[in-house]
Amino acid sequence: MGKKIACVITDLFEDVEYTDPAKSFSEAGHEVVTIGLEKGQTVKGKQGQEQVSIDKGIDEVSPNEYDALFIPGGFSPDQLRGDERFVTFAKAFMDEKKPVFAICHGPQLLITAKTLEGRDVTGYKSIKVDLEYAGATYHDQEVFVCGEQLVTSRQPDDIPAFNRESLALLSK
Amino acid sequence: MGKKIACVITDLFEDVEYTDPAKSFSEAGHEVVTIGLEKGQTVKGKQGQEQVSIDKGIDEVSPNEYDALFIPGGFSPDQLRGDERFVTFAKAFMDEKKPVFAICHGPQLLITAKTLEGRDVTGYKSIKVDLEYAGATYHDQEVFVCGEQLVTSRQPDDIPAFNRESLALLSK
Repeated sequence: MGKKIACVITDLFEDVEYTDPAKSFSEAGHEVVTIGLEKGQTVKGKQGQEQVSIDKGIDEVSPNEYDALFIPGGFSPDQLRGDERFVTFAKAFMDEKKPVFAICHGPQLLITAKTLEGRDVTGYKSIKVDLEYAGATYHDQEVFVCGEQLVTSRQPDDIPAFNRESLALLSK
Repeated sequence: MGKKIACVITDLFEDVEYTDPAKSFSEAGHEVVTIGLEKGQTVKGKQGQEQVSIDKGIDEVSPNEYDALFIPGGFSPDQLRGDERFVTFAKAFMDEKKPVFAICHGPQLLITAKTLEGRDVTGYKSIKVDLEYAGATYHDQEVFVCGEQLVTSRQPDDIPAFNRESLALLSK
Protein backbone atom coordinates (compact mmCIF):
# COMPACT_ATOMS: atom_id res chain seq x y z
CA MET A 1 0.00 0.00 0.00
CA GLY A 2 1.26 3.46 -0.89
CA LYS A 3 2.81 5.63 1.81
CA LYS A 4 2.32 9.36 2.34
CA ILE A 5 5.65 11.21 2.22
CA ALA A 6 6.17 14.74 3.54
CA CYS A 7 8.72 16.66 1.45
CA VAL A 8 9.95 19.85 3.11
CA ILE A 9 11.26 22.26 0.51
CA THR A 10 11.89 25.90 -0.30
CA ASP A 11 13.84 28.03 -2.77
CA LEU A 12 17.32 27.04 -3.98
CA PHE A 13 16.65 23.31 -3.59
CA GLU A 14 18.98 21.17 -5.73
CA ASP A 15 16.69 20.58 -8.71
CA VAL A 16 17.22 16.89 -9.44
CA GLU A 17 17.40 15.99 -5.75
CA TYR A 18 13.71 16.80 -5.56
CA THR A 19 12.41 15.83 -8.99
CA ASP A 20 14.14 12.50 -9.39
CA PRO A 21 13.32 10.90 -6.00
CA ALA A 22 9.79 12.38 -6.08
CA LYS A 23 9.19 10.77 -9.49
CA SER A 24 10.60 7.48 -8.25
CA PHE A 25 8.42 7.51 -5.11
CA SER A 26 5.28 8.41 -7.10
CA GLU A 27 5.89 5.73 -9.71
CA ALA A 28 6.11 3.18 -6.90
CA GLY A 29 2.63 4.19 -5.73
CA HIS A 30 3.53 6.55 -2.90
CA GLU A 31 2.19 10.09 -2.48
CA VAL A 32 4.64 12.99 -2.12
CA VAL A 33 3.22 16.12 -0.46
CA THR A 34 5.37 19.26 -0.74
CA ILE A 35 5.43 21.31 2.46
CA GLY A 36 6.78 24.85 2.53
CA LEU A 37 6.12 28.23 4.03
CA GLU A 38 2.71 28.70 2.40
CA LYS A 39 0.32 26.61 0.36
CA GLY A 40 0.25 27.56 -3.32
CA GLN A 41 3.69 29.19 -3.27
CA THR A 42 6.05 28.27 -6.11
CA VAL A 43 9.65 27.55 -5.12
CA LYS A 44 12.58 27.49 -7.52
CA GLY A 45 15.55 25.17 -7.88
CA LYS A 46 19.06 26.53 -7.59
CA GLN A 47 19.99 25.38 -11.10
CA GLY A 48 16.98 27.25 -12.51
CA GLN A 49 15.63 24.06 -14.08
CA GLU A 50 12.68 23.22 -11.85
CA GLN A 51 9.81 24.94 -10.08
CA VAL A 52 7.75 23.21 -7.43
CA SER A 53 4.30 24.15 -6.19
CA ILE A 54 3.82 23.90 -2.42
CA ASP A 55 0.90 21.64 -1.49
CA LYS A 56 0.71 22.53 2.20
CA GLY A 57 1.97 25.34 4.42
CA ILE A 58 3.94 24.26 7.48
CA ASP A 59 1.22 25.63 9.76
CA GLU A 60 -1.38 23.29 8.20
CA VAL A 61 0.41 20.00 8.72
CA SER A 62 1.08 17.52 11.49
CA PRO A 63 3.79 14.81 11.39
CA ASN A 64 1.05 12.31 12.36
CA GLU A 65 -0.45 12.64 8.88
CA TYR A 66 2.69 11.33 7.16
CA ASP A 67 4.53 8.01 7.01
CA ALA A 68 7.94 9.35 6.00
CA LEU A 69 9.98 12.54 5.57
CA PHE A 70 12.00 13.52 2.47
CA ILE A 71 14.51 16.40 2.59
CA PRO A 72 16.02 17.38 -0.79
CA GLY A 73 19.34 19.24 -0.74
CA GLY A 74 20.74 22.45 -2.17
CA PHE A 75 20.35 25.59 -0.05
CA SER A 76 16.74 24.77 0.82
CA PRO A 77 17.47 22.84 4.06
CA ASP A 78 19.57 25.66 5.52
CA GLN A 79 16.72 28.11 4.99
CA LEU A 80 14.14 25.73 6.42
CA ARG A 81 16.14 25.17 9.60
CA GLY A 82 16.13 28.90 10.30
CA ASP A 83 12.39 28.42 10.99
CA GLU A 84 11.66 26.53 14.22
CA ARG A 85 8.46 25.00 12.79
CA PHE A 86 10.39 22.92 10.24
CA VAL A 87 12.89 21.84 12.89
CA THR A 88 10.08 20.60 15.17
CA PHE A 89 8.38 18.89 12.23
CA ALA A 90 11.54 17.01 11.22
CA LYS A 91 12.37 16.08 14.82
CA ALA A 92 9.02 14.28 15.17
CA PHE A 93 9.88 11.84 12.36
CA MET A 94 13.26 11.10 13.88
CA ASP A 95 11.83 10.70 17.39
CA GLU A 96 9.08 8.39 16.15
CA LYS A 97 11.55 6.37 14.06
CA LYS A 98 9.63 6.93 10.85
CA PRO A 99 11.64 6.70 7.61
CA VAL A 100 13.63 9.86 6.86
CA PHE A 101 15.37 10.41 3.49
CA ALA A 102 17.91 13.25 3.39
CA ILE A 103 20.29 13.99 0.52
CA CYS A 104 23.20 16.43 0.12
CA HIS A 105 22.52 19.35 2.53
CA GLY A 106 19.29 17.69 3.73
CA PRO A 107 20.91 16.44 6.99
CA GLN A 108 21.45 20.10 8.05
CA LEU A 109 17.82 20.16 9.17
CA LEU A 110 18.43 17.03 11.25
CA ILE A 111 21.53 18.59 12.86
CA THR A 112 19.52 21.60 13.98
CA ALA A 113 16.84 19.23 15.32
CA LYS A 114 19.65 17.58 17.33
CA THR A 115 18.67 14.15 16.09
CA LEU A 116 21.96 12.78 14.73
CA GLU A 117 23.87 11.99 17.90
CA GLY A 118 25.17 8.43 17.60
CA ARG A 119 23.82 7.98 14.07
CA ASP A 120 25.67 6.83 10.94
CA VAL A 121 25.19 9.11 7.98
CA THR A 122 26.56 10.60 4.82
CA GLY A 123 25.89 14.01 3.26
CA TYR A 124 27.42 16.68 1.03
CA LYS A 125 31.15 17.09 1.63
CA SER A 126 30.78 20.67 2.89
CA ILE A 127 28.72 19.52 5.89
CA LYS A 128 30.97 16.58 6.87
CA VAL A 129 32.55 18.39 9.84
CA ASP A 130 29.13 19.73 10.96
CA LEU A 131 27.81 16.15 10.98
CA GLU A 132 30.77 14.89 13.00
CA TYR A 133 30.47 17.74 15.52
CA ALA A 134 26.75 16.86 15.77
CA GLY A 135 27.73 13.41 17.04
CA ALA A 136 27.23 11.42 13.85
CA THR A 137 29.75 9.14 12.15
CA TYR A 138 30.31 10.24 8.56
CA HIS A 139 30.62 7.65 5.77
CA ASP A 140 31.92 8.82 2.41
CA GLN A 141 29.73 6.55 0.29
CA GLU A 142 26.79 6.92 -2.08
CA VAL A 143 24.16 5.96 0.47
CA PHE A 144 23.99 4.97 4.13
CA VAL A 145 20.99 3.36 5.81
CA CYS A 146 21.06 3.79 9.59
CA GLY A 147 18.83 1.73 11.88
CA GLU A 148 16.42 0.77 9.08
CA GLN A 149 15.12 4.33 9.37
CA LEU A 150 17.46 7.04 8.11
CA VAL A 151 18.65 7.08 4.48
CA THR A 152 21.31 9.66 3.55
CA SER A 153 23.25 10.37 0.36
CA ARG A 154 25.94 12.87 -0.66
CA GLN A 155 25.05 14.44 -4.01
CA PRO A 156 23.10 14.17 -7.29
CA ASP A 157 25.27 11.30 -8.58
CA ASP A 158 24.06 9.20 -5.66
CA ILE A 159 20.35 9.55 -6.50
CA PRO A 160 19.87 6.01 -7.91
CA ALA A 161 21.22 4.47 -4.68
CA PHE A 162 19.24 6.98 -2.57
CA ASN A 163 16.01 6.10 -4.39
CA ARG A 164 16.68 2.37 -4.17
CA GLU A 165 17.27 2.37 -0.40
CA SER A 166 14.43 4.81 0.33
CA LEU A 167 11.98 2.67 -1.66
CA ALA A 168 13.20 -0.44 0.19
CA LEU A 169 12.31 1.17 3.53
CA LEU A 170 8.92 2.35 2.21
CA SER A 171 8.03 -1.19 1.14
CA LYS A 172 8.51 -2.58 4.66
CA MET B 1 49.12 52.31 8.23
CA GLY B 2 46.70 50.40 6.02
CA LYS B 3 46.31 46.68 6.43
CA LYS B 4 45.97 44.05 3.70
CA ILE B 5 42.74 42.07 4.06
CA ALA B 6 42.08 38.73 2.36
CA CYS B 7 38.40 38.34 1.41
CA VAL B 8 37.45 34.78 0.46
CA ILE B 9 34.38 34.79 -1.72
CA THR B 10 32.44 32.91 -4.38
CA ASP B 11 28.99 32.82 -5.97
CA LEU B 12 25.82 33.40 -3.94
CA PHE B 13 27.56 35.66 -1.41
CA GLU B 14 25.13 37.93 0.45
CA ASP B 15 25.54 41.08 -1.65
CA VAL B 16 25.71 43.81 1.00
CA GLU B 17 27.76 41.66 3.36
CA TYR B 18 30.62 41.99 0.89
CA THR B 19 30.09 45.45 -0.59
CA ASP B 20 29.39 47.39 2.57
CA PRO B 21 32.28 46.16 4.77
CA ALA B 22 34.68 46.23 1.77
CA LYS B 23 33.78 49.88 1.15
CA SER B 24 34.19 50.69 4.82
CA PHE B 25 37.62 48.99 5.01
CA SER B 26 38.83 50.69 1.82
CA GLU B 27 37.66 54.11 2.96
CA ALA B 28 39.67 53.65 6.16
CA GLY B 29 42.82 53.09 4.09
CA HIS B 30 42.97 49.30 4.08
CA GLU B 31 43.32 47.12 1.00
CA VAL B 32 40.77 44.36 0.35
CA VAL B 33 41.95 41.55 -1.96
CA THR B 34 39.24 39.18 -3.21
CA ILE B 35 40.35 35.55 -3.28
CA GLY B 36 38.33 32.88 -5.09
CA LEU B 37 38.77 29.83 -7.24
CA GLU B 38 40.51 31.63 -10.12
CA LYS B 39 41.90 35.09 -10.75
CA GLY B 40 39.75 37.17 -13.09
CA GLN B 41 36.58 35.18 -12.42
CA THR B 42 33.41 37.18 -11.74
CA VAL B 43 31.25 35.96 -8.86
CA LYS B 44 27.63 36.96 -8.32
CA GLY B 45 25.68 37.90 -5.21
CA LYS B 46 22.65 35.86 -4.22
CA GLN B 47 20.35 38.89 -4.42
CA GLY B 48 21.52 39.53 -8.00
CA GLN B 49 22.62 43.05 -7.08
CA GLU B 50 26.39 42.77 -7.06
CA GLN B 51 29.17 41.17 -9.06
CA VAL B 52 32.70 40.90 -7.73
CA SER B 53 35.88 40.34 -9.72
CA ILE B 54 38.34 37.87 -8.14
CA ASP B 55 41.79 39.43 -7.65
CA LYS B 56 43.66 36.24 -6.78
CA GLY B 57 43.08 32.51 -7.18
CA ILE B 58 43.40 30.43 -4.01
CA ASP B 59 46.45 28.65 -5.47
CA GLU B 60 48.32 31.96 -5.85
CA VAL B 61 48.06 33.18 -2.26
CA SER B 62 49.66 32.56 1.11
CA PRO B 63 48.16 33.62 4.46
CA ASN B 64 51.54 35.25 5.25
CA GLU B 65 50.81 37.97 2.69
CA TYR B 66 47.73 39.21 4.57
CA ASP B 67 47.06 40.92 7.89
CA ALA B 68 43.41 39.88 8.28
CA LEU B 69 40.69 37.62 6.86
CA PHE B 70 37.16 38.72 5.87
CA ILE B 71 34.43 36.12 5.16
CA PRO B 72 31.15 37.55 3.78
CA GLY B 73 28.00 35.46 4.24
CA GLY B 74 25.27 34.07 2.00
CA PHE B 75 25.86 30.65 0.46
CA SER B 76 29.44 31.50 -0.50
CA PRO B 77 31.09 30.17 2.71
CA ASP B 78 29.43 26.77 2.43
CA GLN B 79 30.78 26.37 -1.10
CA LEU B 80 34.26 27.54 -0.11
CA ARG B 81 34.49 25.04 2.75
CA GLY B 82 33.87 22.18 0.32
CA ASP B 83 37.37 22.99 -1.00
CA GLU B 84 40.18 22.04 1.38
CA ARG B 85 42.40 24.90 0.15
CA PHE B 86 40.06 27.55 1.58
CA VAL B 87 39.75 25.64 4.85
CA THR B 88 43.54 25.52 5.24
CA PHE B 89 43.82 29.21 4.30
CA ALA B 90 41.24 30.28 6.91
CA LYS B 91 42.74 28.04 9.59
CA ALA B 92 46.09 29.82 9.28
CA PHE B 93 44.57 33.19 10.27
CA MET B 94 42.86 31.63 13.28
CA ASP B 95 45.98 29.73 14.34
CA GLU B 96 48.17 32.82 14.00
CA LYS B 97 45.62 34.96 15.87
CA LYS B 98 45.30 37.46 13.05
CA PRO B 99 42.02 39.40 12.87
CA VAL B 100 39.16 37.41 11.30
CA PHE B 101 35.83 39.03 10.36
CA ALA B 102 32.96 36.63 9.60
CA ILE B 103 29.33 37.59 9.09
CA CYS B 104 26.12 35.57 8.67
CA HIS B 105 27.16 32.14 7.26
CA GLY B 106 30.85 33.19 7.27
CA PRO B 107 31.61 31.19 10.45
CA GLN B 108 30.77 27.97 8.56
CA LEU B 109 34.26 28.08 7.07
CA LEU B 110 35.72 28.39 10.58
CA ILE B 111 33.68 25.40 11.80
CA THR B 112 35.07 23.21 9.03
CA ALA B 113 38.57 24.48 9.91
CA LYS B 114 37.84 23.30 13.49
CA THR B 115 38.89 26.64 14.91
CA LEU B 116 35.90 27.61 17.05
CA GLU B 117 36.26 25.30 20.04
CA GLY B 118 36.01 27.43 23.19
CA ARG B 119 35.34 30.64 21.25
CA ASP B 120 32.49 33.13 21.70
CA VAL B 121 30.67 33.96 18.49
CA THR B 122 27.49 34.95 16.76
CA GLY B 123 26.28 34.11 13.24
CA TYR B 124 23.15 33.61 11.17
CA LYS B 125 20.37 31.92 13.13
CA SER B 126 20.37 28.83 10.87
CA ILE B 127 23.95 27.94 11.92
CA LYS B 128 23.44 28.48 15.67
CA VAL B 129 23.27 24.77 16.50
CA ASP B 130 26.25 24.02 14.20
CA LEU B 131 28.29 26.62 16.09
CA GLU B 132 27.32 25.16 19.45
CA TYR B 133 28.15 21.61 18.34
CA ALA B 134 31.50 22.98 17.10
CA GLY B 135 32.32 23.99 20.67
CA ALA B 136 31.56 27.71 20.45
CA THR B 137 29.25 29.70 22.72
CA TYR B 138 26.58 31.47 20.64
CA HIS B 139 25.54 35.03 21.47
CA ASP B 140 22.38 36.38 19.86
CA GLN B 141 23.63 39.95 19.41
CA GLU B 142 24.63 42.21 16.53
CA VAL B 143 28.35 41.70 16.96
CA PHE B 144 30.70 39.71 19.18
CA VAL B 145 34.44 40.32 19.49
CA CYS B 146 36.27 37.28 20.85
CA GLY B 147 39.83 37.53 22.17
CA GLU B 148 40.54 40.80 20.37
CA GLN B 149 40.79 38.70 17.22
CA LEU B 150 37.51 37.27 15.94
CA VAL B 151 34.61 39.56 14.96
CA THR B 152 31.29 37.87 14.08
CA SER B 153 27.84 39.22 13.21
CA ARG B 154 24.47 37.66 12.39
CA GLN B 155 22.97 39.32 9.32
CA PRO B 156 22.87 42.41 7.04
CA ASP B 157 21.21 44.57 9.72
CA ASP B 158 24.31 44.11 11.87
CA ILE B 159 26.74 45.49 9.27
CA PRO B 160 27.33 48.88 10.96
CA ALA B 161 28.37 47.16 14.21
CA PHE B 162 30.41 44.57 12.26
CA ASN B 163 32.28 47.31 10.37
CA ARG B 164 32.87 49.34 13.55
CA GLU B 165 34.40 46.45 15.51
CA SER B 166 36.39 45.14 12.54
CA LEU B 167 37.89 48.59 11.93
CA ALA B 168 38.71 48.90 15.63
CA LEU B 169 40.78 45.69 15.46
CA LEU B 170 42.49 46.81 12.24
CA SER B 171 43.58 50.06 13.88
CA LYS B 172 45.43 48.25 16.69
